[in-house]
Amino acid sequence: MSFRSAISDKSEFDNLFPRWNKLEPNVQKILHSQASFHSAKKGTILQSDENHCIGLVLVNSGQLRVYMMSDEGKEITLYRLFSGDMCLLSASCILSSIQFEVIVETEKNSNFWIIPSTTYKTLMAQSLPLCTYTNELMSARFSDVMWVMQQVLFKSMDERLSEFLLDETNREDNEILKITHEQIAHHLGTAREVITRLLKYLQDENAISLSRGIITIKDRSLLEERVHTPLTE
Amino acid sequence: MSFRSAISDKSEFDNLFPRWNKLEPNVQKILHSQASFHSAKKGTILQSDENHCIGLVLVNSGQLRVYMMSDEGKEITLYRLFSGDMCLLSASCILSSIQFEVIVETEKNSNFWIIPSTTYKTLMAQSLPLCTYTNELMSARFSDVMWVMQQVLFKSMDERLSEFLLDETNREDNEILKITHEQIAHHLGTAREVITRLLKYLQDENAISLSRGIITIKDRSLLEERVHTPLTE
Repeated sequence: MSFRSAISDKSEFDNLFPRWNKLEPNVQKILHSQASFHSAKKGTILQSDENHCIGLVLVNSGQLRVYMMSDEGKEITLYRLFSGDMCLLSASCILSSIQFEVIVETEKNSNFWIIPSTTYKTLMAQSLPLCTYTNELMSARFSDVMWVMQQVLFKSMDERLSEFLLDETNREDNEILKITHEQIAHHLGTAREVITRLLKYLQDENAISLSRGIITIKDRSLLEERVHTPLTE
Repeated sequence: MSFRSAISDKSEFDNLFPRWNKLEPNVQKILHSQASFHSAKKGTILQSDENHCIGLVLVNSGQLRVYMMSDEGKEITLYRLFSGDMCLLSASCILSSIQFEVIVETEKNSNFWIIPSTTYKTLMAQSLPLCTYTNELMSARFSDVMWVMQQVLFKSMDERLSEFLLDETNREDNEILKITHEQIAHHLGTAREVITRLLKYLQDENAISLSRGIITIKDRSLLEERVHTPLTE
């Protein structure tokens, strides 16, 4: 694997593991002894079709992106994970019913723990608090994916692009986004040409300005308006 | 609600409830006393945005369809439920993280039990076997929805239509399908005109023949071929 081990403070693990205080002491002990700490540079693929079910990833710092990819290389972002988030789908083998593959990539330099899938599976079969937490975690991810699906199915691309630009500026707390047209196309599951055309339209409208690899938001209200009244069906 | 109560044999309930024998006796007892039996004619909406979280539906006989709908009335089928299947999303309120609405409709005359959401939620917090089962159920549905999403995102419509026709003939065990172009469009989340055009193409190819409200499969191998080599991207 292309990420390296690192030394971590286990008390950080306790603080970041959701509902740690509700777990039984023996479950806590096993999680402590089995979790390993790692770090990976931005752009590292933690999980792919070839390297699947690496274990449960608990993010310490940084940002992970979970996405699907078609045989032709078309991508769509399902959700992102931040400090304290757990990636259930990187341990999809713990649940026999999960039969799809996702790709997990670091979007920023990241530190994270990995809990082996077999360990987690064994503990989940013994611990009601862990089972309950896993249930909630899965329904939250299910909800995220359903949201993406509704966007894809029922919203026009200019609406989705405007929403994406607003979300990104909120997340980065910066009106200047360093992102290529191709990267946006991957996030939204479309072709680069479609994004380029729509961005040019938004520039002509004075909502944004474009320069090499950079998009600057000039008028948020125009983007917000676009979300409510899309150009096309 | 537009479905009526009926009398059922509780031993049927035991046989159909998945993993019944693994549940604790007190959990079995509560489920017995709380589940109510109902029947509904084909085409009944059991759950919608207005009438949501009716409880956990356990299908005795018939067929249910779970789908999403846009504000403009565009539909897409997520999955179907048959005898012995449980509809978790009809009790989505038991999981606070589930924040999307689906519609549940009877596709055939159906009999089913309803377990109140509050009952199920209480039992799930006490019973590890029930929590574990719910976990597996949710991951199976999650997998179903991801499959639909991959189809929508990454497959061309003629490929999806050919696959749909093959699936329907397998399910109904009949090469003659009574279904309108509009119904197919709803299943696949597209416009009726798109389906009509593609069906005519498949008729011209001698894969199917069309008459009012009826599609007859003439050559399965041509449809199977279409699944592997779609017309367009």
